[in-house]
Amino acid sequence: MRKRFTLQEYKEGVLSGDRTKLSQAITLAESLLETDLKLASDLVQEILPCTGKSIRIGITGVPGVGKSTFIEAFGQLLVDSGKSVAVLAVDPSSQKSKGSILGDKTRMEKLAGDKRAFIRPSPTGTTLGGVSSKTREAMLLCEAAGFDVILIETVGVGQSETAVKSMVDFFLLLMLAGAGDELQGIKKGIMEMADGVVIHKADGENLSSAKKAKSSYENALHLFPLGENNWSTPVMTASSQTKEGLSDIWETIQKYADQMQLSGFWESNRASQRLNWLDENLQFLLGKFFMEHEQVQELLLQNRARVENGELSPLSLARDLITTFFQFNEKR
Amino acid sequence: MRKRFTLQEYKEGVLSGDRTKLSQAITLAESLLETDLKLASDLVQEILPCTGKSIRIGITGVPGVGKSTFIEAFGQLLVDSGKSVAVLAVDPSSQKSKGSILGDKTRMEKLAGDKRAFIRPSPTGTTLGGVSSKTREAMLLCEAAGFDVILIETVGVGQSETAVKSMVDFFLLLMLAGAGDELQGIKKGIMEMADGVVIHKADGENLSSAKKAKSSYENALHLFPLGENNWSTPVMTASSQTKEGLSDIWETIQKYADQMQLSGFWESNRASQRLNWLDENLQFLLGKFFMEHEQVQELLLQNRARVENGELSPLSLARDLITTFFQFNEKR
Repeated sequence: MRKRFTLQEYKEGVLSGDRTKLSQAITLAESLLETDLKLASDLVQEILPCTGKSIRIGITGVPGVGKSTFIEAFGQLLVDSGKSVAVLAVDPSSQKSKGSILGDKTRMEKLAGDKRAFIRPSPTGTTLGGVSSKTREAMLLCEAAGFDVILIETVGVGQSETAVKSMVDFFLLLMLAGAGDELQGIKKGIMEMADGVVIHKADGENLSSAKKAKSSYENALHLFPLGENNWSTPVMTASSQTKEGLSDIWETIQKYADQMQLSGFWESNRASQRLNWLDENLQFLLGKFFMEHEQVQELLLQNRARVENGELSPLSLARDLITTFFQFNEKR
Repeated sequence: MRKRFTLQEYKEGVLSGDRTKLSQAITLAESLLETDLKLASDLVQEILPCTGKSIRIGITGVPGVGKSTFIEAFGQLLVDSGKSVAVLAVDPSSQKSKGSILGDKTRMEKLAGDKRAFIRPSPTGTTLGGVSSKTREAMLLCEAAGFDVILIETVGVGQSETAVKSMVDFFLLLMLAGAGDELQGIKKGIMEMADGVVIHKADGENLSSAKKAKSSYENALHLFPLGENNWSTPVMTASSQTKEGLSDIWETIQKYADQMQLSGFWESNRASQRLNWLDENLQFLLGKFFMEHEQVQELLLQNRARVENGELSPLSLARDLITTFFQFNEKR
């Protein structure tokens, strides 16, 4: 049985920067118990005025691109320049592989040992909706605890990129130079989400192919439309071994932050992210209530395959499910 | 007051290919009245076994790219080769501009006069969720009426592309050659949705720049990952004036269809589209019930801005809204 604290105890602990209390508060937010969720929700509301001051950076790339070594080296650079850094991860598949859960801290050994860094393994929520909501809460709690930079890692192969994009200020895509084979792992559409692309492992024998890749991607990205923020996605090269290029990335992110704060996009983006979070939460909670209804579950179980194979109209089943749901509610 | 028919009358009319009945059936599906919606839903279920045999093609591009002239010329090519063609449009903004509602038929004068073509202006639903669901129903009704090819036009500047992508077999993006300025109108991410890109207006003085643009985009697209279907997006040039390139586009689409039917992607894609439609409908209907509740509306009105400006946690408001909704339901 985990120990619980009062709202006041959690709040004071987090705001004073107490790492143990911060960890416990994040654990509370990750709980599946209704009473914990209520307490966590109240806690987030309490610490809200002390959030929003960090730079939130999403980092993605396929397995093998070296995300962990990058975060270790990049985090070290930030820490050495006087910033405090929190590392979070969104990985809804982690329950299966257990990779991130056991691995994060050991993979980032040096950073994990640093007093100015805080590394939190992936939450073990069952759905992406749940996980991404919990990661947002963890992010706010870390901000309230005073961290200057939040790095949010995601796996680069699934829906989690959209979730991370919707909670960060800057989205960084790590790539490898090469014949294009490694691209197959990246989901279509992720390239266009990136605010910055880094050709990673640009060292030793890879250096010249990395430079070539950089200019190919620069040419390609110039053909693509700019987003709302009018930012032209830069392509950089970096090595986590030689540390070459890491400070350029940080300068680029700072330049982005300056430019977006000036244009007002920084705040308008965060405002729409908050409204998205509200929508997402509503959909998640409504869907949860809906799917927990026995009659709804049963009807869906009986007919989902018939919709899939084109025998039953999705429209008809949706109407029946909704009718079942509200009849049940009315009868309670 | 519009005339209503019985389920049987609509069904027989649509299945016999009666255009007037088809139009009336689509109008029924676009109605906002609950009794009409129920009847339309039953009708879609009835005609479902007779759907699925057409090729569904989505067509997008910014205003000015020449979508209407392209659809007119491309539709004519199809009709001349013995195919029957239905043209639909998804444009949630059409209520404001009235452009598509009044304009579609006059803009496609020749095609509209052809007996093997059917042109249906945009529905006037108020939300994208509503419009895209109604367009899916219109598509199925057209298929049941025996059309071989369904062309679905969208405006290229908003969310409607995702909606159209989720209901078609092949998604075609029209572009113009040029200095890149016209790209600004296209939303980020649309390029990566395309199964085919056409540099339009490739005639006269534009011809050489169109060819240049084609090879630039080819190079750029090769750097981007393939989708699940393993299809490498071709870039073509075409002119709706000279008709040059139009038959290549149709051949490409047929090649795509053959390849995807062979690999099984054609059917697996349609199966997942059906499940998506179910999800979308459920979310739409649940959201509709939710947002129609007075207390929910009131609470949301009072607090939405506080979430937007970061004063109130999205999580807290979502919980309060859900509690309000279910309390109200329980009390009914």
